[in-house]
Order: sequence, then structure tokens, then C-alpha cells
Amino acid sequence: MEKERILDRIEAPCDLRPLGVAELTRLAAEIREELITTVSRTGGHLAPNLGVVELTLGIHRALDCPKDRIIFDVGHQSYVHKLVTGRRDRFDSLRQYGGICGFPKRCESPLFDTFDTGHASDSISVGLGLALARDASGGDETVLIVIGDGSMTGGMSFEALNHLGHLGTRLVIVLNDNEMSISKNVGALARYLARVRLDRRYQRLRDGVESRLAVMPLGKAMVDAGEAVKDSVKQLLVPGMLFEELGLKYIGPIDGHDIAAVESAVRAAKRTDGPVLVHAATRKGAGYAHAEEQPDAFHGVGPFSVETGKANGGGDVAAISYTEAFSRALLTEAAANGRIVAITAAMPAGTGLDRFAERFPERFYDVGIAEGHAVGLAAGLALGGRIPVVAIYSTFMQRAYDQLITDVALQNLHVVFCLDRAGLVGEDGPTHHGVFSLTYLRSIPNLQVIAPADEAELAHALHTAVSADTPVALCYPRSATTGIGLPESCEVWEPGRAEVRRRGKDIALIGVGRMTVIAEAAAELLAAEGLDASIINARWVKPLDTKMILQAAGSHRLLATIEENVGAGGFGAAVAEVMADAPERPPLLRFAVPDCFVSHGATDILMKEIGITPENVCSAVLGRMQQLSDAGAAPDTAAVKAAEPIPVPSISSGSR
Amino acid sequence: MEKERILDRIEAPCDLRPLGVAELTRLAAEIREELITTVSRTGGHLAPNLGVVELTLGIHRALDCPKDRIIFDVGHQSYVHKLVTGRRDRFDSLRQYGGICGFPKRCESPLFDTFDTGHASDSISVGLGLALARDASGGDETVLIVIGDGSMTGGMSFEALNHLGHLGTRLVIVLNDNEMSISKNVGALARYLARVRLDRRYQRLRDGVESRLAVMPLGKAMVDAGEAVKDSVKQLLVPGMLFEELGLKYIGPIDGHDIAAVESAVRAAKRTDGPVLVHAATRKGAGYAHAEEQPDAFHGVGPFSVETGKANGGGDVAAISYTEAFSRALLTEAAANGRIVAITAAMPAGTGLDRFAERFPERFYDVGIAEGHAVGLAAGLALGGRIPVVAIYSTFMQRAYDQLITDVALQNLHVVFCLDRAGLVGEDGPTHHGVFSLTYLRSIPNLQVIAPADEAELAHALHTAVSADTPVALCYPRSATTGIGLPESCEVWEPGRAEVRRRGKDIALIGVGRMTVIAEAAAELLAAEGLDASIINARWVKPLDTKMILQAAGSHRLLATIEENVGAGGFGAAVAEVMADAPERPPLLRFAVPDCFVSHGATDILMKEIGITPENVCSAVLGRMQQLSDAGAAPDTAAVKAAEPIPVPSISSGSR
Repeated sequence: MEKERILDRIEAPCDLRPLGVAELTRLAAEIREELITTVSRTGGHLAPNLGVVELTLGIHRALDCPKDRIIFDVGHQSYVHKLVTGRRDRFDSLRQYGGICGFPKRCESPLFDTFDTGHASDSISVGLGLALARDASGGDETVLIVIGDGSMTGGMSFEALNHLGHLGTRLVIVLNDNEMSISKNVGALARYLARVRLDRRYQRLRDGVESRLAVMPLGKAMVDAGEAVKDSVKQLLVPGMLFEELGLKYIGPIDGHDIAAVESAVRAAKRTDGPVLVHAATRKGAGYAHAEEQPDAFHGVGPFSVETGKANGGGDVAAISYTEAFSRALLTEAAANGRIVAITAAMPAGTGLDRFAERFPERFYDVGIAEGHAVGLAAGLALGGRIPVVAIYSTFMQRAYDQLITDVALQNLHVVFCLDRAGLVGEDGPTHHGVFSLTYLRSIPNLQVIAPADEAELAHALHTAVSADTPVALCYPRSATTGIGLPESCEVWEPGRAEVRRRGKDIALIGVGRMTVIAEAAAELLAAEGLDASIINARWVKPLDTKMILQAAGSHRLLATIEENVGAGGFGAAVAEVMADAPERPPLLRFAVPDCFVSHGATDILMKEIGITPENVCSAVLGRMQQLSDAGAAPDTAAVKAAEPIPVPSISSGSR
Repeated sequence: MEKERILDRIEAPCDLRPLGVAELTRLAAEIREELITTVSRTGGHLAPNLGVVELTLGIHRALDCPKDRIIFDVGHQSYVHKLVTGRRDRFDSLRQYGGICGFPKRCESPLFDTFDTGHASDSISVGLGLALARDASGGDETVLIVIGDGSMTGGMSFEALNHLGHLGTRLVIVLNDNEMSISKNVGALARYLARVRLDRRYQRLRDGVESRLAVMPLGKAMVDAGEAVKDSVKQLLVPGMLFEELGLKYIGPIDGHDIAAVESAVRAAKRTDGPVLVHAATRKGAGYAHAEEQPDAFHGVGPFSVETGKANGGGDVAAISYTEAFSRALLTEAAANGRIVAITAAMPAGTGLDRFAERFPERFYDVGIAEGHAVGLAAGLALGGRIPVVAIYSTFMQRAYDQLITDVALQNLHVVFCLDRAGLVGEDGPTHHGVFSLTYLRSIPNLQVIAPADEAELAHALHTAVSADTPVALCYPRSATTGIGLPESCEVWEPGRAEVRRRGKDIALIGVGRMTVIAEAAAELLAAEGLDASIINARWVKPLDTKMILQAAGSHRLLATIEENVGAGGFGAAVAEVMADAPERPPLLRFAVPDCFVSHGATDILMKEIGITPENVCSAVLGRMQQLSDAGAAPDTAAVKAAEPIPVPSISSGSR
């Protein structure tokens, strides 16, 4: 405000080109300030964006967007891109309902956001497809991918590199190598990259070897020995031999915080007639001391104090998160049973496994961003007598659906899957909502599925799962717990037994997981209207408590299910399946996530948007009960017209 | 029979050890004869097994099974292993109902079959898990993986290698490099392996370089230049630099048809304290001229004549397969629309895309065994204005569930998915049955799902999908078509409109895809019993013809759905969802694949086993109608007892 910002003059990437070195340096500082200020209020992916300020500016100076196209792998590092592509004015609405999304969104910027990413490792595949389409239509634009070293560990990246190297398509891959995925990166590839990046000898050798080759005796000998030797010598000249072996040209390593170096490398890459990998070294969190010191804590953050770097105290600090409840409950189980091992796909902190890793390092495996491998590894560990607990977010477990079926369930191996973030996740939006898991898990034979209603139940459910002899999946949400705390000791639950919390006579409300709370609140509202509701906590999605459902169907005038999952094939569908041929078939209302992609924003706003609130449940039930009473008064012989559908407000889809 | 076979003396792998070179050679010949004779009668994966005869014998001589453990990636190359691990006598029951499975099965040989594989690229993950469990419990057995170069292109293999190289766990990987996955292998990795395998210069260099290094001037210079140079020189000594870079020791390339070479390499690998890759070159189909000439045709075959190599004419050669119908229909569409491109994940022949590849090579992409990348690539191509047709078997599409959601459906991109082998596939068994796709596809917003009832409908459905502007998935089975042939010209179907084939008044039978034929046959049987059935061909699984369902519910006493998909969340569930709150709710019987893994065997036997036959549909409907009549005569006030469940015979699960 005090002085005019350069950032305020940047309406599009072309405005970056006239800037000189000093101005660019100032712009980078302004962008960092904007990032820190905004994210300290909205929450978001701070450290990844602080790490790519210069990288993004350098790329945009070298490219000609929107003609050229950029795809951001995962996409949580696209804030800088958003700031220089016409979204500066709205940037304070970042991740808020109706505001700027925390990931690229074609609907938000049809010109500059090429592809809506959110899950890791798909960018090379998509970029290759786009480049092939360009070649087919005779275009000459550059397609450029920005991908982190973490995303490179995902198998899909390798599948795409394998295909790309084979085709030789013109495509620029900028490897943003910050030695981190979300936490410290792991794996042989990371070690390889570190060797390439850090070993100054490579750099020195590159300067000298080429000229020396001609004058030294072996120089001649090597030429004689033919291609094989030349390939080997290449390792001296080209540190990225691994990529060169796969058919990519390698440029680097370069300093990703040097705008001119980035610009020049990308310009060179653009001119290359084939696939190129530009290897840029960056520091996650660069330019903000707190984030540089704790880049994993600042990977994705809630609102915080800029000065101290500490999270702003929420109103409700007494209740821990479900993640925290899982973290503690697992420690108890693991202390009591030495066969328990834990697996994460690059998210030790996000899943709450960090404490397990500290306490039992020899029983902990971080496999990198590699959900398929995580599940296959668990199958092998179970085969060898361990009890693997695989903690993966609901949305990312979609990557391992086949492995769940084929590697684990088919052989009935005892693996425990802990799906955090099952349900709406709020600000991260449509790529991160975990709203499919009840459907896809329920389809799998031998797999048991539990949705605990509170943190105490999560502990019991985990104990039950660890004590089972089949695969079991637990689904719990991204939210604060109810506050009732963890139990002193845990029970083993009988499979397929729901908990009846209240017996009523008019309506049966069946909640799944934390939706049981909505059922309870709706029952209170209905009581005020003179209706007597049973409240049932489903607990088991599979096996289902069919006996309870048939009894409820036989003793109520209306049933309603409430779940935080898509309606298609979800829990309500399971109840409908049971009731389809039941002797008594009262109407069943299903409150579920509608058949569309739900946008980003605060979870309570989104829940209202999709009609899952006590008020909406109450009014829909009241309306339907009224219809039933009317029909009872005048039997519905001619009433073939459909019942009023449950009122669900229109949804802003993530894709439109 | 004429002379005693050595094979008949092999009860367990230990019986291989006393054999001399001449006996081993004779044994290999006997095994080939057994493979060819048996598979010519039963059908099966011939070429892969002919290629691993010596490899398997060499491995078993070097290992000490069952103490040591072998995991076969994919597992279709485990016939030789089965022959030498006590299953010789039953080998003529290969792939038959109740007989020997075509893949490893722990239930078939708890001692020798370590893991039930079937899908590609999971073996390194599982083997690593097993090896880690071994180390945790202080064991010293060897875990050995046999994996083809095709399976190496699957991303999960890379994810596992990345983790394995990081951990440095003792594990032996035998890379069975036959330059093929199912068809000719593709990709940069394949090219790299070919370079390593074929370039004789590597071999010569290895013999000479090591000694020369010491005496030549640069030898000294290189030592001085330090680690970086040593790594480079390693490329001369070790052709498998790519694997060494990832932290694996590389042994090879060796001749996979030389039993002694294999045995010695595996013994060396066993002694290594860390991960080792043994690179063995083999010939797919080796030892049977027809299979060597056409290894892809002999990858998986039906019964054939040993002499001519030609398929035995089935009884029903007039009707083409659904694969063939798709193949022809796609050619017609592609000829008319130049924007159509086609993608396969290493199965051009199996999916019927081979003809497209011949005719439109520049519009065809074989991405290797890489379903996730295939779908991501399609998203990019669609983004660039192409119309990608992605042909992947139903069971393998499970690998790309997340990409379907995130890369395609979220952005509403126009990609056409063609899921062949949707339904029971017969002899390949539980890993290959495509019985989950209606459930997992139906859960995805924006995606339309069509199940054509015959080959003419497949052509119309494909035309409809190509003409749409959203993602569309077609599901069709592994079977002969009905024989009605392909239409002269195709229509664009109205989304969500079912076909009423016959209007009756008592019962409505709704069939999905080829199950419409079962509905028609059941209706005939019911007519003979005096019941008048409507016959409905669903066509659209999504969007669903809710109007038709509500009308049927309002005008029949009973509804029944028939599908070749699991009941949980499948088509019948979709109908139950619609009827849950419908004004009229007659009973709904759902005929579907039960909640267990269905075994291998002829499809008609399996369909009987799971109760999906016209006779069973007829008798279940009759029984339920009788109950309804009884209840109508004496209103069921006290009848809270559940209706008789549909009689479903017990299922032999793949896992038990």
C-alpha cells in the first residue's frame, strides 16, 4: 500500500518480460509477501509456493502463455502462477467458498490454467497427450510440466516417462527438486537426484572433461570402442544419465532461485526437438524463516501468525482431530502388539503416523507417493505374519483400488486400511473430497468396512480391525472429534452390529460415521414437531446389520440414511439393497453427496450446499411424512406420480 | 507313455537337483511336450510358459523351496513351476472348473505358491513386504521374483524399485526379458534393455576393460577423479547402470535358456546382501515353431491343433466375439472422424485395436502395461481436441479408477472408455472377472455408462459415445455375440433411455447387456407357468432410465434385475436406489454376482454356480410371486419374517 507494487502492474505473463534484474528481485519479494500474508489468513500450501517463486517467474519469461501451456503436477504450487495470470485482485479469496481455488482450475482461468490437477504424478501423461494432439494438428506451442521430485516417485510418472522417451515427443519437464514430497523425500530416485545435485565434482568435470577428452590417450581409445563407451563418458558430461537412458535430454542441475538461469534453461529446452528434463534445485519454504525451518509443517497450513509462525488458536481447541485420535489409538495398539507395522505414502504427518515413526522406526515404512505399492507391500508384510496398518487419505486410496481387490482381498490377507479425510475435506476442494470410498470399498469381497461415529469409536474400531483375521477398512473424516475422548481400554466389536442410540416409533434415522451427530440433531428437531425418531449409528458399512435394517423397516413409517459419500452405491444404497425385497418396505430417504463434483470452501458451507444439515433432514422427513399421511387418508390408487424429490440446492461443480 | 519320463519322477523341486545336464535337457523337452499337449486341449498361456522352461528349472535348482519363496509377476508363466511342484498328475485339468488354476494359487499349493498373482507389476511390492517380514522375524530364506520386461513398465514396479533401492533389502528379482509384454514390448525401458542385451560390445568390454584399467594411463587418472568417474566407468563394467543407479546390484545379461547359467546367476544373487536384479534373456514360445513365429497369438490361446497351430473350430463360428464387433465398429467410426485416436495398455490384439493400429498407425498409442498413464494420456489428448478411445479390460481398468475420476470426469473431458471382458471371463478366473465395473463406474459424476445387449447395440453405443461431449464408458463381455451382426448405419442414442422389448403385466425383468438374453429366456419359462413378463433392456447404467423404472414399479407386482456385476452398488442397486422412495414399491429381486470371488472354469458353469440362469430366475420369481399371492390372500400383518432369500449355490472362492 505504501509504495506502488510491481506486482500490481502484472496483468498477464507478458508484463514480466520488460522487467530488469532489480525489478524481478523486487517482484519476487512482493510475491513472497503476498503469499505469506494471504495464506496466514486463508490457510493453504505455503512452503511449496515460496519454493517456486523464481522458478515460476523464469518459466513465464521464457514461455509465451496462453499460447504455450503449463501443467502443474499436483497443482498446489500454482499460487505464484495465479498471481501473475490475472488473479491478483481476487487472491485474498484463496480457498474460500466461491473464491480462488488452491489448485489450477480451467473454469477459473480458461486461458492460463491448462489442466485441473490435485493428485500427484499425472502431469507427464496429460502433457504428453496434449503435445501429441498439438503435433497432430500442426501446432508449434510449447507444453511445459512443472513436477516435484516427490511426484516423480509415483508410478504414473514413470509410465509416462517410459512412453515419452519411446515416442520422442517435444515436451519440457521442469523437475522442481526440493528434496521433499510433503515430508522429506524418500527412495532411491531421491538419493540419485541428491547425488546429481550436490556432487560438485560433476559440475567441475563437465567444465573440463570435454576438452581434455581430445588430447588424452584414452580419448582416442574411447572413440574407437564405439557407442557403448560414448554413452559412459556421457555420464561425465551429463549427470542425468538416468533420464538420458530413458530417452530424455537432460539440462541441469540449475539453481531454481536464479530467475535468469531458469529462463535460459527453459529457452534452451523449448528449442529442443524432443523431450527435455530441466533439473532445478529449489528450497521449499524459501524466504520465510519459519517455513524454511519446518517445510513439512508449512506444506499445508491453517491460518497462522506471520510473526511467530504459530497456528492461530481456533475456537475449539479442546477437541482433537480424528487424525490425532488415530495417531494416539495406534500407538496404544502398537505398544501392545509387536506384529503391527505402519505404512504411509509420503504423508507421515498428515496421516498422524509421525508419532508411530518416532516411537517404532523399525516398524514404519514411508514408501513415497506410491499408493499402489503401499498396498502391495502391505500384502507381502501380511503374508509374512505382520499386521500392516496402511494410512492413506480416502481420495488417494482411489489410486490403489485394484491392489485392494487383487493383492489383499482376493487372498483375504489381514491388512488394516485407515482412510482419513473420508467425506468432504473443505478448502482443498473436489480433487480431495473423500466421497467415493464407501462405494468402492463396499464392492470388494472379504473386506470389512467400519465408519466410527466419534474418536472413542475410532479407537474401538481400530482395535477391532487389528484383532480381525480379514482385511478391514476404517473411514473417518477430516474434522475435529466430538470431544468425548479416547477410551481407557478398547473392545472388539461384533462384525455387522449397529448401535441403536434411541428407539422411536415413527421414523428411523441411520447415520454413518460423524453423520450420526446430524441424525441426532435432526431427531431433536423432529421431536419438536411431534415425531418420534429412532437414532441408529450404523458403525458397519460392511458387513451390514441387515437384521437391524429389516427390524427398522418393519417398525417405522419412514427410514432415512445420512452419509458423507456419493449416493450411487453408497451406504444408503446398501440399505436400499437390503430393503428391495424385504417383507415391509416403507419409503427410504437417502441423504448423500449428490452426483456431481463438490467445490471448495468451508465444510459447513458445503454441507449446506448439498443439503446435509439437521434442518434439511428434518424438513424433508416432515414433507415425506405429510405425503404418507395424505396418502393414508386417501389411498394412492392413482398416485403414480413420483414423490417430491428431496430439495438439494444446485451445486457448483469443480469442472464448470 | 512309451518310455518313462523324467518329469514323472519330479514330485518336488528337490528332485531336480540330482539331475545331470543330459537329463535336464530331456526334462525340458518333456515339459515342453506336456505344455503343448495340455494347452492345445485346455487353452491357456502357452508362449509365456514355453519361454521360461529352463529359467524355472534353473531357479528351482538354485533355491530351496518351499523354504525359499518364489513370486511370479502376473503368474500366467507359472505352469512349469506347477509341473515340478506336485501338480503334474492334475495338470490336464488346467483352467477347467475345479481343476488347476492358470495362475498361482495358495489354496492349490500352500507350500509352493507364495502369492496369487494375476494383474501385472505387483510382485516387487509383495516380495519386498515378504522380505521385510522375514528380516523382522530373523529368517534367512530367499525371496525371489520372476517378472517380465512387460510388467516392468507398470508404474507399481517402479514405485517398488524406488523403495527397494532405498531400503537395500535382500531380494532377488529375475527379469525375464523376452522383448514382449503380450505383444511386442514398447517404451524407453524396452529399448534400453534391448541395447544392454544385444550390444555385444558390452560383453566384450566387460571381459577386457577391468584388466586394462590398471595399466592404462587414464586408469590412474580415473581413480583420482573420484567417485563420479568410477560410477561412469561402471557403465562399462555393468550394463545395468539404470538399475544400479536405483540401488540394485545387476547381474547379466544371461541366457535364460541355459539352465546352468540361470542356476549359477541365481546362486550368486542369493549370496548378495541386498537387492539384486538378474537379467535373463528368453524367447517367448521357445521350442514350438508356431509359438515362436507368432508369440502374441500364442500368448493366450484357446484349444488348437498341435500340428498346424490353428485354433480348433468351435461349434459356433458364425457369431463373432464382442471384441471383434468392437474392432470393426471402431474402424467405421475412425474412418468417418479423423479426430478419433485409440489407446491400449499393451493389448492391441486382446482389445481388438490391432486392426485400428494397422489402418491408422499415426492415431494409435500402445503405452505398455500402464493403465493409469493410458487414462491420463487420454485426458491430455481430449484436452487437445482429439477423441480418445481407451480400450482396457474391465478388470484392468480398476488400476485407473482414480485417473477416471480426477483426470477425466472432474473436467468432463470427452474420452470414450471401452471395457471389454466386463462380466465373468471363464477360465482365467477371479483376477480376471470384470465384475466390479458397473459399481465403480456408476459412482463417478459426469461419466455415462452403457451396456449394449448385442453387437448391433455395441456399434450404436460406440457411435453414441463418440458423438457425445462427456466421458462415456461402454461395458461388454468376453463372449460370442448374438449373431445378429453389425448395423449398416448407427444411431445416436438418447441418454438414459432403456429399450422395452416386451410389455407384460405381472413381472418386469430388466437385463443389463447380454443378460437381456437371460431375461428373455426366463420370460419364456414364466409364460409357460402362466405369468406375463415385461422384458426391458437397460442399455444405460448411467444415466438411469428412472422414468421407466418408476413406470415398471407402478405397473407390475414384482421387478427383477439381472446383471453380471457384483450386487453391491451395481445395476440392481441403482434400481433399488430409484425405488427406495418411489410411490409404489413392489419387491425387487436382484440377480447379480454374489459378494465373493468367483473361481475359474467355463463361463456357463460359473453362471450356474452363481445362480444366473433363466431357470433360476424363473424359479426364484415364481417362488416370490407365490409368496405375494399367499400374502394377498391372507394379509401379512404378522409376517415380519424375511422373505426366502434367492437360492444361490455355495461359491468356491478364489481365495479359499
